[in-house]
Amino acid sequence: MNATEQCKQSEQIQLPFGLSEYAQRLERTRQAMLERGLELLIVSDPSNMYWLTGYDGWSFYVHQCVLVSLERAPIWFGRRMDGNGAKRTAYLAHDDIIGYSDDYVQSSELHPMEFLCQEVIIPRGWQRSRIGVEMDNYYFSAAAFAALQYGCPDATWQDATGLVNWQRAIKSAQEIAYMRIAASIVQHTHQRIYEVIEPGMRKNDLVAQIYQASIAGVAGHGGDYPAIVPMLPTGKDASAPHLTWTDAPIPDDSVTFFEIAGCYKRYHCPQSRTVYLGQPPQVLLDAEQAVIAGIDAGLEQARPGNTCADIANAFFKELRRRGFDKDGRTGYSIGASYPPDWGERTMSLRPQDKSVLQPGMVFHFMPALWDAEWGLEITEAIHITANGAEPLCSTPRQLFIKK
Amino acid sequence: MNATEQCKQSEQIQLPFGLSEYAQRLERTRQAMLERGLELLIVSDPSNMYWLTGYDGWSFYVHQCVLVSLERAPIWFGRRMDGNGAKRTAYLAHDDIIGYSDDYVQSSELHPMEFLCQEVIIPRGWQRSRIGVEMDNYYFSAAAFAALQYGCPDATWQDATGLVNWQRAIKSAQEIAYMRIAASIVQHTHQRIYEVIEPGMRKNDLVAQIYQASIAGVAGHGGDYPAIVPMLPTGKDASAPHLTWTDAPIPDDSVTFFEIAGCYKRYHCPQSRTVYLGQPPQVLLDAEQAVIAGIDAGLEQARPGNTCADIANAFFKELRRRGFDKDGRTGYSIGASYPPDWGERTMSLRPQDKSVLQPGMVFHFMPALWDAEWGLEITEAIHITANGAEPLCSTPRQLFIKK
Repeated sequence: MNATEQCKQSEQIQLPFGLSEYAQRLERTRQAMLERGLELLIVSDPSNMYWLTGYDGWSFYVHQCVLVSLERAPIWFGRRMDGNGAKRTAYLAHDDIIGYSDDYVQSSELHPMEFLCQEVIIPRGWQRSRIGVEMDNYYFSAAAFAALQYGCPDATWQDATGLVNWQRAIKSAQEIAYMRIAASIVQHTHQRIYEVIEPGMRKNDLVAQIYQASIAGVAGHGGDYPAIVPMLPTGKDASAPHLTWTDAPIPDDSVTFFEIAGCYKRYHCPQSRTVYLGQPPQVLLDAEQAVIAGIDAGLEQARPGNTCADIANAFFKELRRRGFDKDGRTGYSIGASYPPDWGERTMSLRPQDKSVLQPGMVFHFMPALWDAEWGLEITEAIHITANGAEPLCSTPRQLFIKK
Repeated sequence: MNATEQCKQSEQIQLPFGLSEYAQRLERTRQAMLERGLELLIVSDPSNMYWLTGYDGWSFYVHQCVLVSLERAPIWFGRRMDGNGAKRTAYLAHDDIIGYSDDYVQSSELHPMEFLCQEVIIPRGWQRSRIGVEMDNYYFSAAAFAALQYGCPDATWQDATGLVNWQRAIKSAQEIAYMRIAASIVQHTHQRIYEVIEPGMRKNDLVAQIYQASIAGVAGHGGDYPAIVPMLPTGKDASAPHLTWTDAPIPDDSVTFFEIAGCYKRYHCPQSRTVYLGQPPQVLLDAEQAVIAGIDAGLEQARPGNTCADIANAFFKELRRRGFDKDGRTGYSIGASYPPDWGERTMSLRPQDKSVLQPGMVFHFMPALWDAEWGLEITEAIHITANGAEPLCSTPRQLFIKK
């Protein structure tokens, strides 16, 4: 299929980005491959597959990948029945969508990656190439790698974890537009939470409202599923950052944080806020002020030329000055994603990360505090512009109190 | 900490199962380890971690595991901040909850599995053991295995994919009770879909209703998040089984299938139904009759002593007799699960699978038909009892037609 035919075919499906944007992404990826001496790249991360080709489906529970070479168009490889989904969502030529049969699904005898070697890699003469694999991706299991090594014993394997993710760090205008829609959705959802939360409400009923608000969406834009479900631990449970929910009622005089995201066309805008039902104890009010001052200090540093570490250090310093302590990371790069993580898995806002900030990068600045008895999350998604940090949401930056 | 203290401590948290049930599960797992000559098992599958210890949190986007040895109590290993979640949800002694610092999170320099070797495996003298790892689990990446091999060069590694999953195949009374609640939730959700769906409704608004119904739950039992988001492709898109949703309106004279699940305490009851808006074409009505007859034929075979293959073959035979063709698998074992898959990843209903059915097993019998122009899903979750198959739901088994 030539470029015109491919173009014609892809007009029939609704791609989230224009073909020229996909061409640029491919070019950037190939450049990174050349720099590392890679002749072939096996892309297993669903968000990278989506970013490169448009492929979008909940099929990552079986083995699948996109193959990027230096010359020919990318190849989608996955379960045969999901090939139909690739035809419906990716710009690829149908000949470049290759499926394996159901015998290979969750079988202890047959592995899809052996099929990939036999039917795709070897017939195209790539079996002695230098091949990049995303060694530390969720969907590239130890068995997948073993099957590739077995099926292509003469290939040279190189860890390419994050190679594509890094190409995604600076967003295009269309990507920022989608993230702004996601931002409007998460902002709307926090409003809904504040409107409906009350003592005695079962937590799952509140979650039902969160889903309703975030999927119905805003201003005609329907919400997509975020890569993480709502997390909303209360009280002592809020000392644990990643608990989800139960059907127990929310007690009076309690603090609950809400770590949620808006999602539009797989682009995420996470934002957390915290709600106290009743009169908060002084320690929480002090923590609120410390976090807000810390965010201000971090935002001040969030400008092109500075580093991820600058944001984190400014935040931690302000926090310590006010008597609170936190270590670890306080944010990460965001963009398109699939479960189980809405982060981009490249840059982290932490003292060790010297990545230089550039216009078009977007981070979830996530200055959460988790104490043994409570948790407080007031966070911002920030867009790095030439003039500094632009928060994507205008949700009031405070501890919400409802009496 | 001795058994009494551990018991006391775990009274303070709400475990989904009694301590004696966890003891039995551990015993069954150790028996399977002994049969394979394993001295240590590294359990990375979140559903296995949950089943063995009660640990429940959305933390599987970072490396974590449960270590099962033949003598001592299981150890939870994960990100330090998630250790709080382990204390809140697992029955384990707090000394057996071991965390790594945030430096190890999504870092290109430090890997949590190296920390596991240095701080957990080697200090306990397991570094020369025969160690089982879940090679083909989503959350056991190629890099995780490489880090273990590097950190414990004298260990012998054995693939233990599915070892724990197989111990889960026969459900306890309490597990069946949870699955019945999940069944009532999915049945309620299908009712809601039928009530609210209409031509012109945006798909995302329907999804918002699906979430509302399934999370609010039934009869005082709040719904948990299913391991897969709702899938509801319409028309030609329904030829692709794993597309999720858009914000486009549902057209008149169109067919949409709904692949959804109820979930309660992580136990799933998936069930699919299909809705036609308008007067369905004859081919769909014929397909409906073929699928219903195929289900009857399969259910007839779904009794102790028969095999998974017997169900699949009976279904396929009936389908072919009526002029429809399908290959591949037509169902799988179900139980507790986490994203990205609500299957148990052991038995499949397919001709190659000779696993013998036993009372207490539960399957999603999934006789879907995907044509190039449409898809039809009418499926049942079935419980194998001494007397044969018991469908967990009583949702009418038909193509729903709404005019």
